[in-house]
Amino acid sequence: SRMRILPSLVRSISLEALKPSDSFPRRHNSVTPDEQQAMSELCGFSSLDDLIDSTVPKSIRSPPLKLSKFDEGLTESQMLAHTKSLASKNKVFKSYLGMGYYGTIVPPVILRNIMENPGWYTQYTPYQAEIAQGRLESLLNFQTMITDFTGLPMSNASLLDEGTAAAEAMSMCSSIGRGKRTTFFVAKNCHPQTIDVCQTRAGALGLNVIVAEPKDFDYRGNNVCGVLLQYPGTDGDILDYSEVISNAHTYGAKVVMATDLLALTVLKPPGELGADMAVGSAQRFGVPMGYGGPHAAFLATSQEYKRLMPGRIIGMSVDSTGNPALRMAMQTREQHIRRDKATSNICTAQALLANMSAMYAVYHGPDGLKVIADRVHGLASVFATGIAKLEGFHLGSRSFFDTVKIVVGHGQAQQWADAGIEQGVNLRVLDENSVTVSFDETTTLVDVDQLLQIFSKGKTDLTAEAVALEAEVSIPSVLVRESAYLTHPIFNMYHTEHELLRYLHRLQAKDLSLTHSMIPLGSCTMKLNATVEMMPVTMPEFANIHPFAPLDQTQGYQELFTDLGNFLCEITGFDSVSLQPNAGAAGEYAGLMVIRAYHHARGEAHRNVCIIPVSAHGTNPASAAMCGMEIVAVGTDEKGNVDIVELRRAAEANKDNLSALMVTYPSTHGVYEEGIDEICRIIHQFGGQVYMDGANMNAQVGLTSPGHIGADVCHLNLHKTFCIPHGGGGPGMGPIGVKRHLAPYLPSHPVVPTGGIPPPESRKPLGSISAAPWGSALILPISYSYIAMMGSKGLTAASKLAILNANYMAKRLEGHYRVLFRGGSGTCAHEFIIDLRSFKGTAGIEPEDVAKRLMDYGFHAPTMSWPVPGTLMIEPTESESKAELDRFCDAMISIRGEIQAIESGVANPGINVLKCAPHPASVVLADDWNKPYSRESAAFPATWVRASKFWPSTGRVDNVYGDRNLICTLLPVSPAAEEQSAAA
Amino acid sequence: SRMRILPSLVRSISLEALKPSDSFPRRHNSVTPDEQQAMSELCGFSSLDDLIDSTVPKSIRSPPLKLSKFDEGLTESQMLAHTKSLASKNKVFKSYLGMGYYGTIVPPVILRNIMENPGWYTQYTPYQAEIAQGRLESLLNFQTMITDFTGLPMSNASLLDEGTAAAEAMSMCSSIGRGKRTTFFVAKNCHPQTIDVCQTRAGALGLNVIVAEPKDFDYRGNNVCGVLLQYPGTDGDILDYSEVISNAHTYGAKVVMATDLLALTVLKPPGELGADMAVGSAQRFGVPMGYGGPHAAFLATSQEYKRLMPGRIIGMSVDSTGNPALRMAMQTREQHIRRDKATSNICTAQALLANMSAMYAVYHGPDGLKVIADRVHGLASVFATGIAKLEGFHLGSRSFFDTVKIVVGHGQAQQWADAGIEQGVNLRVLDENSVTVSFDETTTLVDVDQLLQIFSKGKTDLTAEAVALEAEVSIPSVLVRESAYLTHPIFNMYHTEHELLRYLHRLQAKDLSLTHSMIPLGSCTMKLNATVEMMPVTMPEFANIHPFAPLDQTQGYQELFTDLGNFLCEITGFDSVSLQPNAGAAGEYAGLMVIRAYHHARGEAHRNVCIIPVSAHGTNPASAAMCGMEIVAVGTDEKGNVDIVELRRAAEANKDNLSALMVTYPSTHGVYEEGIDEICRIIHQFGGQVYMDGANMNAQVGLTSPGHIGADVCHLNLHKTFCIPHGGGGPGMGPIGVKRHLAPYLPSHPVVPTGGIPPPESRKPLGSISAAPWGSALILPISYSYIAMMGSKGLTAASKLAILNANYMAKRLEGHYRVLFRGGSGTCAHEFIIDLRSFKGTAGIEPEDVAKRLMDYGFHAPTMSWPVPGTLMIEPTESESKAELDRFCDAMISIRGEIQAIESGVANPGINVLKCAPHPASVVLADDWNKPYSRESAAFPATWVRASKFWPSTGRVDNVYGDRNLICTLLPVSPAAEEQSAAA
Ligand SMILES: Cc1ncc(COP(=O)(O)O)c(C=O)c1O
Ligand SMILES: Cc1ncc(COP(=O)(O)O)c(C=O)c1O
Ligand SMILES: O=C([O-])O
Repeated sequence: SRMRILPSLVRSISLEALKPSDSFPRRHNSVTPDEQQAMSELCGFSSLDDLIDSTVPKSIRSPPLKLSKFDEGLTESQMLAHTKSLASKNKVFKSYLGMGYYGTIVPPVILRNIMENPGWYTQYTPYQAEIAQGRLESLLNFQTMITDFTGLPMSNASLLDEGTAAAEAMSMCSSIGRGKRTTFFVAKNCHPQTIDVCQTRAGALGLNVIVAEPKDFDYRGNNVCGVLLQYPGTDGDILDYSEVISNAHTYGAKVVMATDLLALTVLKPPGELGADMAVGSAQRFGVPMGYGGPHAAFLATSQEYKRLMPGRIIGMSVDSTGNPALRMAMQTREQHIRRDKATSNICTAQALLANMSAMYAVYHGPDGLKVIADRVHGLASVFATGIAKLEGFHLGSRSFFDTVKIVVGHGQAQQWADAGIEQGVNLRVLDENSVTVSFDETTTLVDVDQLLQIFSKGKTDLTAEAVALEAEVSIPSVLVRESAYLTHPIFNMYHTEHELLRYLHRLQAKDLSLTHSMIPLGSCTMKLNATVEMMPVTMPEFANIHPFAPLDQTQGYQELFTDLGNFLCEITGFDSVSLQPNAGAAGEYAGLMVIRAYHHARGEAHRNVCIIPVSAHGTNPASAAMCGMEIVAVGTDEKGNVDIVELRRAAEANKDNLSALMVTYPSTHGVYEEGIDEICRIIHQFGGQVYMDGANMNAQVGLTSPGHIGADVCHLNLHKTFCIPHGGGGPGMGPIGVKRHLAPYLPSHPVVPTGGIPPPESRKPLGSISAAPWGSALILPISYSYIAMMGSKGLTAASKLAILNANYMAKRLEGHYRVLFRGGSGTCAHEFIIDLRSFKGTAGIEPEDVAKRLMDYGFHAPTMSWPVPGTLMIEPTESESKAELDRFCDAMISIRGEIQAIESGVANPGINVLKCAPHPASVVLADDWNKPYSRESAAFPATWVRASKFWPSTGRVDNVYGDRNLICTLLPVSPAAEEQSAAA
Repeated sequence: SRMRILPSLVRSISLEALKPSDSFPRRHNSVTPDEQQAMSELCGFSSLDDLIDSTVPKSIRSPPLKLSKFDEGLTESQMLAHTKSLASKNKVFKSYLGMGYYGTIVPPVILRNIMENPGWYTQYTPYQAEIAQGRLESLLNFQTMITDFTGLPMSNASLLDEGTAAAEAMSMCSSIGRGKRTTFFVAKNCHPQTIDVCQTRAGALGLNVIVAEPKDFDYRGNNVCGVLLQYPGTDGDILDYSEVISNAHTYGAKVVMATDLLALTVLKPPGELGADMAVGSAQRFGVPMGYGGPHAAFLATSQEYKRLMPGRIIGMSVDSTGNPALRMAMQTREQHIRRDKATSNICTAQALLANMSAMYAVYHGPDGLKVIADRVHGLASVFATGIAKLEGFHLGSRSFFDTVKIVVGHGQAQQWADAGIEQGVNLRVLDENSVTVSFDETTTLVDVDQLLQIFSKGKTDLTAEAVALEAEVSIPSVLVRESAYLTHPIFNMYHTEHELLRYLHRLQAKDLSLTHSMIPLGSCTMKLNATVEMMPVTMPEFANIHPFAPLDQTQGYQELFTDLGNFLCEITGFDSVSLQPNAGAAGEYAGLMVIRAYHHARGEAHRNVCIIPVSAHGTNPASAAMCGMEIVAVGTDEKGNVDIVELRRAAEANKDNLSALMVTYPSTHGVYEEGIDEICRIIHQFGGQVYMDGANMNAQVGLTSPGHIGADVCHLNLHKTFCIPHGGGGPGMGPIGVKRHLAPYLPSHPVVPTGGIPPPESRKPLGSISAAPWGSALILPISYSYIAMMGSKGLTAASKLAILNANYMAKRLEGHYRVLFRGGSGTCAHEFIIDLRSFKGTAGIEPEDVAKRLMDYGFHAPTMSWPVPGTLMIEPTESESKAELDRFCDAMISIRGEIQAIESGVANPGINVLKCAPHPASVVLADDWNKPYSRESAAFPATWVRASKFWPSTGRVDNVYGDRNLICTLLPVSPAAEEQSAAA
């Protein structure tokens, strides 16, 4: 037995035994102490610490981590109690602030079965289509919804927020104009944060943003690539932009409309008005405001510009059996292939939130959404009618959808906003003379009554119900939508809770997630997303807060930001942190922009060369390009380390213009480069700044830190090291930490000024880089809880175990596969690469064959052919148990045997279990099985799949076919049925 | 398009359009208005109302339902807001009350992935083993845990609560003594509610309960069948019962020990002490107190008494391929087969909670549980040591596990309890001179400090930490446990969150639930369990309240009970309701006991004949037997209706002793018997009371009611009509409603007096029938929310649509199967029976073959061979969409074709898709497929299974083999491995 019996002689009670028993680190760090010892020994070390000391260069080891708060780690129940106390410090006021963020009712069936369901939130981006058809279908629904509403035929599968979506569209306009048109025109009536994000982005791209009234704007002389309009405007006004659009087109400028999905149920869509692009946020389709995010933004355009589209696009293709199958389309546009030539740096987006919004549309259907829109509009109209009857006000416009502008009298706007706050409601001060009131799905007639009382100082007898009789529709007749939307059956079948529940579960069953098995994607850090960490995300006091709510209503969040900022500083060795970037790539962009601002401030604006090793993630060069930097690549040596000689040469050659180095540590090859401190010294010597890509922080926490190593700035993928789940392709968070000299430049925000945490002495912010002041604030409690529960010891142990697990696996696999790039003492960091290149020659086997074959074993493939083509990069993380590591190694070793069978001529070189992988049930069950191997060896290659089989739902998906025959929305039913029956 | 476009001419706004848009009935009632019309017409009626009017006898139609509150129905968000306001009226005090209910930390991974997961909570009892292996495994874990802790080799898979478990054990003792030993001896030191439940139960069984000190008890002269001891005692004292036990055995009495699982980690188990049975509650293993329930109780005993064991027992067997497979064992003991001769009336138990507790043990493992136990004990010892140092107290005992008894001084107990309440803690007043303080997993050193302050009136300097140095273990050395427990690998593998998460999801994936498809179990009413209804269950203000907390701390609950009681009265046409019975069968027992008490009160104690139609559910005769009634069966006519002539004869023949009739309405055959009012009149005429079994209330709500029809008492299965999910075999709730003359007799409770809601004028309660005053209070918000959101119209529509759906399906199937027992106008009620008997002759096909074949189509079978052997009873409920009804009908029609193929000689009569069903993947994929039909026809008999296949995880399970080779716990690993490899 494993049990220790109370020795009857020991009758005293130790204080140790009285400590709370629900400690967290042992639930997160999976390998037990006994196993740690045995595994370390197998790797050739006397202990875990011996392995670590031999692996992490002494020169960079930092003193033990110490957290300023919760250093011992809270237990799970202490954490929940603390979270609730933070929550209680947030005050949930009724929000009428609008500006792209609205109250919404998350359908409870979606809340429980997507947002609170690890079967939906734990996956990575659907790189392996055959085991991701569920969310691929949902994202295709999202794209279809967006194209239907905008009246433009192409949509991507989400962007980070409305502000960055507008900035991406601006980049597209510039690209369409081949960079020769250098002005981007923004209508004054856009949301202030959208304007600011565009301005920040434009600066580095060499674009000039003009903000003005569209009707006054004179295109002549201005070299305009594009125009951004808001529809309806930020003040609620609905203008007929037909003339503005045709005018812009006359002068060769493209038109982007920032718009609102709910409004588009009743308004003529941008596509019909002639717009070239539409952007916006799907937040109000069932995603809580969350103090700013995460939400799915969208960008739609015409087929013509599809190759310029940023972000992931889901498309139809066919699988090996000729059946329709989905996968990510046109990946060649993206940063991971095109690098600095990519359309955008975006990588992690907002898949989970796009899925929620798409399901919201599926659940309500076109009729249901129309009812909601009519109701919101009706309430706004009733309110407007009431206001018009009160003394002292007049309406700013008679055309609006959900936002009523009230001219309140000279200089009195703030006074009315204060009167609202006294009654627990937030109104927007548009300017000193006017306020706006935005209505949403959560508003009721009682709320309208309350508002009328506020604006009458409690004196009116008017009631909403009475006023309603006189109210009229306030949409201009010419702009009333006449075209249909969401006509596909998917949006018309699942309107009851049982039907939606089952649809969600059918899709979920197609996707492999962390609820099934480890997902050893190198560089992606698919660790445990613990339940206690996830719980705050759906607490109303965190979820239902507008990003621009007054700070005294958000003290719980503010306390959390401060503590989290401090934690991150302590962990990274930096002096200040910005929580604004809402993905890793956004962090890269933000960090480089900080460096840029720093050089500018020192009068060295000419410093614009960014050195990037060839081994860098594609987001690095793409981000540098977005900052207008000139990229100089440096190579790596045969060990995967940066070629220091070459680096020094490059730095020296560019010394006058050197801006920055981007470097990943441990390297993207999974090695602690011994020369990292020298690398930093070289860059500094030549006037540059060191940007560290923090994607691999999971191998640093508590052992070393970017600040300690010598970096000046670094982003942290909170969705990797700090436990935010990947959501099947987002959300993420990419805060950046900086050294003291860079802190003044950290991003701020036009509506809610912000900056570094802790605040630096002076502030010269570079502008804003996300739409919300603290990015996707709603998911910050996840990382916060992780750190607070782990404490410094738990965090440090996590790094050690992540390294141990990787080395253990490398050891188990090294007799079967060539392991690339180990460090000095023969060890790897927290991930390692196995080389499959030789199998091409010996057996005709490519990495993709191994990746697909792993599905038959119930596993998601490691990262494929990155950073080295022809390899797999494996990252186990500390959360995987030895049993799980062994199971994965057993699968890999078994696959090696299958390759061997081809090499030795036992298996058919063309038709074998690898080449034909994966094997969905429909294939293995087909009556006409004519493969030269058995069905059982196809589907049941290991004991554990007999006990519990996860089935890939399609045969191998044909990427090329899909890109040649691009279809990125649901097909109208008849062609889909035809396609299906043709394929059958 | 299905979309209505805003006609641009209509510019006014209707009040209707301003109503909240998240109304609930359209999410619950699935068939759309258009479909309703078409379906009614297909059934031969001009409209839905026409169908209803022709189906429900006019003579019993009641006036439209009107609810005293929420008659219009709350929207989903209004409901949540209201629920939170109720929650805020409950005050969560620290509970030290003990008595079988303790604070516990629900591991968040279990909370989210079982308790909040429809994949675990929506199933019925695992009648179809091949698609229920997941929870069968978990329940086997539960049984293994119980046998390990109690040291007794047989356990069932849960009982309703500790009190009824003790009463069941008492029945077993009586049965073992063949009913000839009429005294049951109960130690004074048992929990008061346990004593009361036993006393109530004993009364009707003709047993005499003596409550006394065990050591003083003289067996001579008393004809004792059994002894009930509490270990540790209700006051915390741990006595060595060795002598008491051997003494009892000397006199031929059996010994039952009520015990505590956590204490048994450190105390010698009952089995080792010589006890014959052990009972208790698994609540403190990770199930919230929930103001009384639901929790899983247990009963363990020796192999010798296995056939007397009440409730479900999970056992190992083999499937058609010889592989090990689980299913419910020894069903022939149970009420659905043995009826009044059954061991017990229990049907619905507490499967979901048993699963939670078992997983709690899996997650913590033996070491982790020991740590928790040592800590709880340590804190109790520290507190006791501190108390002993304070002036004016002495300890009631030096031997305790978690409960410290403090003798506080004459008559001062209440005063100290009041002092506790002032500080937000609840102490138990044991008697006027002493209080007890029970510690649990949630207690901390800070709490001990607070208690010391309370008992010193804030004057002591003692701290828990300081006192701890002197504290000693307070378990008597002779009773220290030395035997191991939970040694099976399952309890030693899944201790990290990832491992448990995946284990939970692997098991979940084996079980078909409402997340997959309709579960058309006739009489079980598997309707939607909506998320909004489920949300309150895991709100701390409902979950973390002790059942005996002072009433002023539970005002939210009390308001809910009052409103729910009123709702149920309005719906049933009764005058008062008791919320105490915690399952349908418990409601039957309670209702009959009310009738018994009524006759007794009128001096007619001799009235003990209960007439029960042969078509009744097995629980009816079993419940009547528990009440000591003599059962007279009456037959049914060829239409399935009660034979009124025979009934009258039986009533008349027994007129002097007639106590009651038990009748189900609509009948168990799914028909509105026209003679129901006459039936009631006859019974009343001969002095009897009418007990209506409310399992079929789903066909009555809003159309008629038991009270209106003439019944005197009725139970309601809230887990059917009122949306409590079935949890895979419980929880349930079976409140009873009664007419005014019966209301005084409704159950009360020894600790928290209660009675009818609304309260009757006078009270003569029959005793208590559950351990907790309001049964499983935690799940009452589910039914409450359902009623409040549906409103009277929604509820009435639900009944109509349940009827429509059944008639529509009957219509679709009638050309293919014989439909039995329709009412006068050719319609059925909310369920109907199809007759498969002829296929035995024509094709050798039995209902079981059809049931198992349905699994291959992704469906759970309807109720099999009840109430009529050789048939299937189908109940669709109002929550299923037309598409789902059609899919099920398509499956049934396709199966009819498969039978036809046998009949016509096309298919092999012995080896065909039905006889060999179900077809798990391992079978259809086997390389050596040698069936005369194709693999595809086996596994993919319908288009929808190609799109999304639910796989049965075993071949057909052999029930007989398992009962002949009874194994009801996890096998030690080596034999299991042997068995497995032998089978492979
Ligand atoms: C090394 C590296 N840098 C940057 C990124 C980009 O981060 P994100 O996907 O959050 O934008 C990744 C993403 O996997 C990465 O692996
Ligand atoms: C007609 C009938 N009566 C009584 C019961 C027993 O109810 P419970 O399972 O809640 O004890 C059932 C259960 O299915 C039933 O169908
Ligand atoms: O998503 C990544 O490219 O790692």
